Amino acid sequence: MNQRIQIFDTTLRDGEQVPGCQLKTEEKIVIARELELLGVDVIEAGFPISSPGDFLSVVEISKTVKEPIVCGLTRAKKEDIDVAAEALRYARRGRIHTGIGSSDVHIKHKFKSTREQVLEQAVWAVKYAKGKGFEVEFYAEDAGRADLEFLAQMTEAVIGAGADVVNIPDTTGYCLPHLYGKRIKFLVDNVKNIDKAVLSVHCHNDLGLATANTVSGVLNGARQVEVTINGIGERAGNTSLEEVAMIFQVHKDLCFETNIKPQKIYGLSKLVSGMMRMPVQANKAIVGANAFAHSSGIHQDGFLKHAENYEIMNPAQVGVPSSSIVLTARSGRAALKHRLELLGHRFEGEELNVFYENFLLVADEKKEVKDEDLMLLMANIPVLTK
Amino acid sequence: MNQRIQIFDTTLRDGEQVPGCQLKTEEKIVIARELELLGVDVIEAGFPISSPGDFLSVVEISKTVKEPIVCGLTRAKKEDIDVAAEALRYARRGRIHTGIGSSDVHIKHKFKSTREQVLEQAVWAVKYAKGKGFEVEFYAEDAGRADLEFLAQMTEAVIGAGADVVNIPDTTGYCLPHLYGKRIKFLVDNVKNIDKAVLSVHCHNDLGLATANTVSGVLNGARQVEVTINGIGERAGNTSLEEVAMIFQVHKDLCFETNIKPQKIYGLSKLVSGMMRMPVQANKAIVGANAFAHSSGIHQDGFLKHAENYEIMNPAQVGVPSSSIVLTARSGRAALKHRLELLGHRFEGEELNVFYENFLLVADEKKEVKDEDLMLLMANIPVLTK
Repeated sequence: MNQRIQIFDTTLRDGEQVPGCQLKTEEKIVIARELELLGVDVIEAGFPISSPGDFLSVVEISKTVKEPIVCGLTRAKKEDIDVAAEALRYARRGRIHTGIGSSDVHIKHKFKSTREQVLEQAVWAVKYAKGKGFEVEFYAEDAGRADLEFLAQMTEAVIGAGADVVNIPDTTGYCLPHLYGKRIKFLVDNVKNIDKAVLSVHCHNDLGLATANTVSGVLNGARQVEVTINGIGERAGNTSLEEVAMIFQVHKDLCFETNIKPQKIYGLSKLVSGMMRMPVQANKAIVGANAFAHSSGIHQDGFLKHAENYEIMNPAQVGVPSSSIVLTARSGRAALKHRLELLGHRFEGEELNVFYENFLLVADEKKEVKDEDLMLLMANIPVLTK
Repeated sequence: MNQRIQIFDTTLRDGEQVPGCQLKTEEKIVIARELELLGVDVIEAGFPISSPGDFLSVVEISKTVKEPIVCGLTRAKKEDIDVAAEALRYARRGRIHTGIGSSDVHIKHKFKSTREQVLEQAVWAVKYAKGKGFEVEFYAEDAGRADLEFLAQMTEAVIGAGADVVNIPDTTGYCLPHLYGKRIKFLVDNVKNIDKAVLSVHCHNDLGLATANTVSGVLNGARQVEVTINGIGERAGNTSLEEVAMIFQVHKDLCFETNIKPQKIYGLSKLVSGMMRMPVQANKAIVGANAFAHSSGIHQDGFLKHAENYEIMNPAQVGVPSSSIVLTARSGRAALKHRLELLGHRFEGEELNVFYENFLLVADEKKEVKDEDLMLLMANIPVLTK
């Protein structure tokens, strides 16, 4: 019997706050729709009090998506929670994500407070958010460096106050996998009411360990993972959705499963990269241009003899199109239609004609129309031609 | 008392075999010199039998570097080992890196052989290479998927045959950190002559776990790590040198140390990225453009109150220049000199004049001369201006 892991996508919140990645509401709606098709369980749609644009995005995404929970971030403050509740009012299922610092360095230097005071504020914020009629997730900021006994005390207190999910973020990307896993296990073993809530892991990649820390958290009892497409996010980014999803696919013996449709990964990676102007490096796992390219003679020889020699995943599994026809202004409707189908979208008749006209406008400006351009075109987002 | 971890850099072998990354011998020499300044212990300089260019590169790097061991890759074949020995004859300290498949999938489908036969060939190859008068490292290809008892038998046999180092590669990037660590521990606990050799870890990043697997290997007894600058390499790449080096710096409590000078990391990352035309994504750990950028309001506020709130490393530690003066054709000698010093290179008098003239030629063609361009210019490598 597989354990179900909840995928909490924060591409539109922790990912979008990166310099140069800011999106308009209509762009966020396109990504939210694609995240729904990908099969994520929770979409963190923004930080409503931070700007009118973020507020509007949370409102519109709440109206748009049907299956996923829509989540809005807040600090542990009345005005934040009031505004988030307002933004989430159209959500079929909304979640308020509130929290406060849990490490002594944050409590002392950021909040100029004490453990007792932040604990009190945490409990108050969870109760207040819960009173708005939403699911509540609590984040214990900088939990990766927090005193473990205090973190357990905080976790128990917020669950007691009604938190449905408790997020244990490694905010600074400091933790090592075996030690981060031990933190999660300590909470599972020592928090008396732990069965009343789901533990969530939210990792940053400052030391290149976000994915490993996330998996270690799950192996030790967490049942929600907070991730972004292409691992974008603050500084060195967040845990990559595609890496975690494929780890559970490749290692079926771990007996964890998600609702992710892996064949949607490639297209969404291209869409996010194009829309946020954040190129993915060629040697990025799963979604990099070289991720499935066998180049050395030894490897090519072994690969041709038997793909399994060098391949633990099949590129088609994650939606990488197998054909390599180059699309230019000389390409016809048939080639375009074929490529769109490989990317998981079917266009026929007049719809295809209209799309083809738009395609030609882009193709005239660019030597080659790439998959990321097609994903933008399909989303009615202007393609940068310079 | 810290344990010393050997850094085996394979940027010029596993990194260089990536599509589009091929370098000329003179370019490889430049990188090899910089790797020596960075403080790596072993430079894998190429695969001598694979091409005349690779042979020449191993010869010339052997003549150039003084401190690091120079290593050449071979299959477990007489002709490979003969050619590698020839290529390494000028090395102050040379190492032959030979090996064969160890997993049943490789033994059966790649070598069309049996466990007994590959074991025999492995032992023969190590003895033959050892007879050439070099240090010998043996790689058990696809060890990540090999039968563990057989892997232990192979390890014991090649150490018995004289191998100084045994490399346990996760060739397909399949392993999970806790299981890869268990493999290493099993070898440490079960191979009788394990004290006669160093265990080495060589990981690939197909699931985003290369760095974590490498660290897990070290925690379980490996004392050499095989890495590349920027994590370049076959498919999703190899373990990133900069990530592993900084993990041991940040987590001093692990009591591991390397000979790496972290302040050289940034410049070498730019040089490799520029020379191999392999852009590093903005959210790459340690060396990405955003790795130390604090963008969200909450983070900026916390960071300004106390840097430690959000920063586990200081960018200056890894050589990221703190000044952000933009260099253009209007910049003077002083600005250029200052930037070069921030990149760790001092130019004075006539040398500076000559460099400045070359700088202006590039600056006339480009809007802005970036750090990667300066690193190429310092290496006398033409800068692509288109």
